[in-house]
Amino acid sequence: MTEEAKRLAGCAAVDNHVKNNQALGIGSGSTIVHAVNRLAERVKQENLKVVCVPTSFQARQLILQNGLVLTDLDRHPELDVAIDGADEVDSDLNLIKGGGGCLAQEKIVAGCAKSFIVIADYRKDSKNFGEQWKKGVPIEVIPMAYVPVIKALQSRFGGVAELRMAVSKAGPVVTDNGNFLLDWKFDKVHDWRTVNTEIKMIPGVVDTGLFINMAERVYFGMEDGTVTIRDKPMN
Amino acid sequence: MTEEAKRLAGCAAVDNHVKNNQALGIGSGSTIVHAVNRLAERVKQENLKVVCVPTSFQARQLILQNGLVLTDLDRHPELDVAIDGADEVDSDLNLIKGGGGCLAQEKIVAGCAKSFIVIADYRKDSKNFGEQWKKGVPIEVIPMAYVPVIKALQSRFGGVAELRMAVSKAGPVVTDNGNFLLDWKFDKVHDWRTVNTEIKMIPGVVDTGLFINMAERVYFGMEDGTVTIRDKPMN
Repeated sequence: MTEEAKRLAGCAAVDNHVKNNQALGIGSGSTIVHAVNRLAERVKQENLKVVCVPTSFQARQLILQNGLVLTDLDRHPELDVAIDGADEVDSDLNLIKGGGGCLAQEKIVAGCAKSFIVIADYRKDSKNFGEQWKKGVPIEVIPMAYVPVIKALQSRFGGVAELRMAVSKAGPVVTDNGNFLLDWKFDKVHDWRTVNTEIKMIPGVVDTGLFINMAERVYFGMEDGTVTIRDKPMN
Repeated sequence: MTEEAKRLAGCAAVDNHVKNNQALGIGSGSTIVHAVNRLAERVKQENLKVVCVPTSFQARQLILQNGLVLTDLDRHPELDVAIDGADEVDSDLNLIKGGGGCLAQEKIVAGCAKSFIVIADYRKDSKNFGEQWKKGVPIEVIPMAYVPVIKALQSRFGGVAELRMAVSKAGPVVTDNGNFLLDWKFDKVHDWRTVNTEIKMIPGVVDTGLFINMAERVYFGMEDGTVTIRDKPMN
C-alpha cells in the first residue's frame, strides 16, 4: 500500500520534470527506487540523454544498476532537477531528511538544482514537524565533536539528542562522509529556519536534516491511488 | 626573530592562564609548539595536574611527545582554557585560521573552552583582514562539493576561491577529517560575522577559518622582545 503510494509519487515526478539533455540529482531512500526505475524506462523508451549525480552510495548503485549515466558535481555543478524523498514534509514544504543517514550529500545535490522535487507517500505529510516523524532531526557531526554537540543542542534548544548506533556493526553509524549522526528529538515547535542556522553554526556540525525553503514541489502518493501535489508557498 | 616572538607569546599565555586541575585545549601550528614546551616545563616544575585535548594530529603528537596527559571531548566536553595560534587577528579579535588546515577541529575545541586564548607573533596583527594574511580564508568542504562551493563563494561574495593542492602527494590536501580545503581570496572588506554564517550555510561547507567573537584575549610576541596583550572589546 505505501509501496504503491511511493511508486505513484516517483513516477509522477519523473514524468513531469525530466526532459531530454538534463543533468539530474538522484536522491536516496526507498521512494527514490521507484523514480529511478521509471527514469530508466523513459530513458530506454524515449532515448533520453540524461546524466545523474548520486546523493549517496545507495543512489550511485541505483544509477549503475539501472544502466543510467553516472556523473558528479565536478562535471555538472549545476543540475536541472534533483528528485529525492523526505521523512517529513511540513505545510511550508520544509523537510526533515536523513533517516537514511545521507542528509549532507542530499543537501549538497539539492542545493545545486534549479528545481528540487520531493517524492513521498502520504505518511510523510504533516502540518508541523513531529506529527508524523518521531525520530527527530538527523544531524551529521564530526566524530570528535559528538558529545559537545549533544550538550549544545540540549541546553540551547531542549529535547534529547542521541548518537545513532549501528545495527550491523558494533558502535555508531558512520556516514558516507565518515562522520557520525545525532538524532535530535525536539520537544516543541521551533522557528525552523532560525534553529537550522543556529545548529549548523555549532562547531562540529557538518549539516542538519532540516531542508528549509529548498523544495519547489512535493508529490505525495496517496492511499487511494491518487497523487497530491503541493507547491512552495509564494513569498 | 619571529620564532622568539612566538615563544614569548606562548609562554605568556601558559603562564597567565593555566592553573592546576584544568582541562586544556591545545591548538595547532608553529606557535603552539612553544606553548606546549612551556606547559610541559610548568607541569614538571609545579606538578600540575592538567589534561589536554588536541585540535589536530599534530597537536596530539605534541601532547604525547611532551609527556602530557592526552584526553578528548568525549571525556572533557568542557575545557577551562584553549590556546591556539592564528594566521591573522583583526582589531575586534576576530581571527583567520586554517593555514595549517586544522580549522574545523580547532573551532570545535575553541568552542568548548570557557576561555579561548590566542598566541601570535607581531606579523599576524591587522586592523582589517587581508592586511597581513594574503592566502585568503580557508574553508573545509566535503570533497564531492568543492566545485559548487567554489562557484557559490565567487558568485555571492566575489574574489577567487581555489582548491588547496598538496605538496607531498599528488592531488588536493586532505584534512584530518578526510575533507578538502578551499582558500578564498576575498577582494574587499566584508561584514565578517554575516559572511561567516552565509558561507557555513552553503551545503557542503564543514566549517570556515573565520573565528568570529570567539577569542577572549590575544598575546602578540613583538619584535622588540615584549608581549602585547589585546582583549576582546566589550559589547
